[in-house]
Amino acid sequence: MTTERRTPGRRPGGPDTRGEIVQAARESFADKGFAATSMRAVARRAGVDAALVHHYFDSKNELFIEALALPVDPRRIAAQILDGPDDEIGRRIATAFLGVWESPDGQQRMKALFRSALSSDEVARMMREGITELIIQPVSAMLDVPDAKLRVGMVATQLVGTAVVRYLVGLEPVASVDAETLIDRLAPVLQQHLTG
Amino acid sequence: MTTERRTPGRRPGGPDTRGEIVQAARESFADKGFAATSMRAVARRAGVDAALVHHYFDSKNELFIEALALPVDPRRIAAQILDGPDDEIGRRIATAFLGVWESPDGQQRMKALFRSALSSDEVARMMREGITELIIQPVSAMLDVPDAKLRVGMVATQLVGTAVVRYLVGLEPVASVDAETLIDRLAPVLQQHLTG
Repeated sequence: MTTERRTPGRRPGGPDTRGEIVQAARESFADKGFAATSMRAVARRAGVDAALVHHYFDSKNELFIEALALPVDPRRIAAQILDGPDDEIGRRIATAFLGVWESPDGQQRMKALFRSALSSDEVARMMREGITELIIQPVSAMLDVPDAKLRVGMVATQLVGTAVVRYLVGLEPVASVDAETLIDRLAPVLQQHLTG
Repeated sequence: MTTERRTPGRRPGGPDTRGEIVQAARESFADKGFAATSMRAVARRAGVDAALVHHYFDSKNELFIEALALPVDPRRIAAQILDGPDDEIGRRIATAFLGVWESPDGQQRMKALFRSALSSDEVARMMREGITELIIQPVSAMLDVPDAKLRVGMVATQLVGTAVVRYLVGLEPVASVDAETLIDRLAPVLQQHLTG
C-alpha cells in the first residue's frame, strides 16, 4: 500500500478505484470472513473514504457478489425459494438452481467458482461463509424445526453434487438429461431433506 | 519408448516394471477409456509380455484401482450394495460410501482423486468411465426399471455432493455432524432416487 492510499477521505475516485475496492473486499472476505467484513473495513483496506465504497456498492452483499463474480444475487435466490407454499419448496429450489446453471453465462461463472473453491482454501472460505450467511441462514430460519441448518446443508450436498456431476465431470446420463427431468428428480429429494 | 521396450515378450520384469505397467494403464484409460483398454493393450504400451501384466495384476479392474490409487475395489462396493433387500439399498449405499470416506486413508486418497478429477480432464474421464462400468452398470442392471441408469446417476450426484461439502469444502453443519446422523439423512433420499 502506498502512502497516498493510506489517506482516508482524500482520494478521489480514479479509474481503478472500483477495482481496488473489490480487491480489498475479496481480501477481507478471505482473511476475516463474510460476517466480520464491513463496508468501512473494506474502505480502510482500499485506502478510500467509506462514502466512495457506498458510491459504488449499495451493500456488503453487492461487494460479495462482485468479489466472487457471482452470476446472481444469492439473496434474490433465497427470496425466490421462500416465496410459496412449504410443500413445494423442493421444486422451487431445484428450479432456481438449474435456472442459474443452465444459462451459458451462469454456467461459465459457476464452473469457474466451483473450480476455484475446490483448489483454493481462500475461495472455499469465502463461498462457505457467504452461502451460510446469505442462503443457509435465511432459508433455515424459515423452517420451523430444530435441525433446520442440517436440513439446508443436506440440500446443499444434493445441489453441489448435481453441479459437479452434470457440469464439471459430465457423468452420463445426468450430464445430458433435460433440465425438466432433472428438476422432477431433484424436487422430491430436496423436499425430503427439508421437510421429510 | 526405447527400442528395448518395444521388444515384446523378451523383457524380464525389472524393479520398475510394475510401475511402468501402471503408467501404461493410466495412459490407456485416459486415451481410450476404460472399456477399450485391455490387459494386452496395456502390455503392448508398456513394451512387456502380456503374461507379465497378468503376473502383477489379476484383471483390468485391478489395474484401474492401481492407476487411480483407489482406496477400495469398486466391484466390492457394488457387491456390498447389491447384497440385501431392495428397500434398504439406500442405507447400504450410504453406509458403504461413508465407510470409505470416514477412514483416514480412504479420505486422503478420495480427496486427492476428487481434486484431480476436478482439475484434469483426463482423470475426470478415467473416473467417469470406471465408475460407469464398475458401479453404475452393475447396480442399474439390478434395478428393474427403464430409467435405472438415471436413477443410479442421481445417487451419484447425492454422494459426490456429500463428499465435496463435507470433506473438501467443509460447509457446516454437514462437515462435523457424526457419520450415523449423515447415514440417516442420506438413506431415504438415496432410496427415493433409486426406487421412489
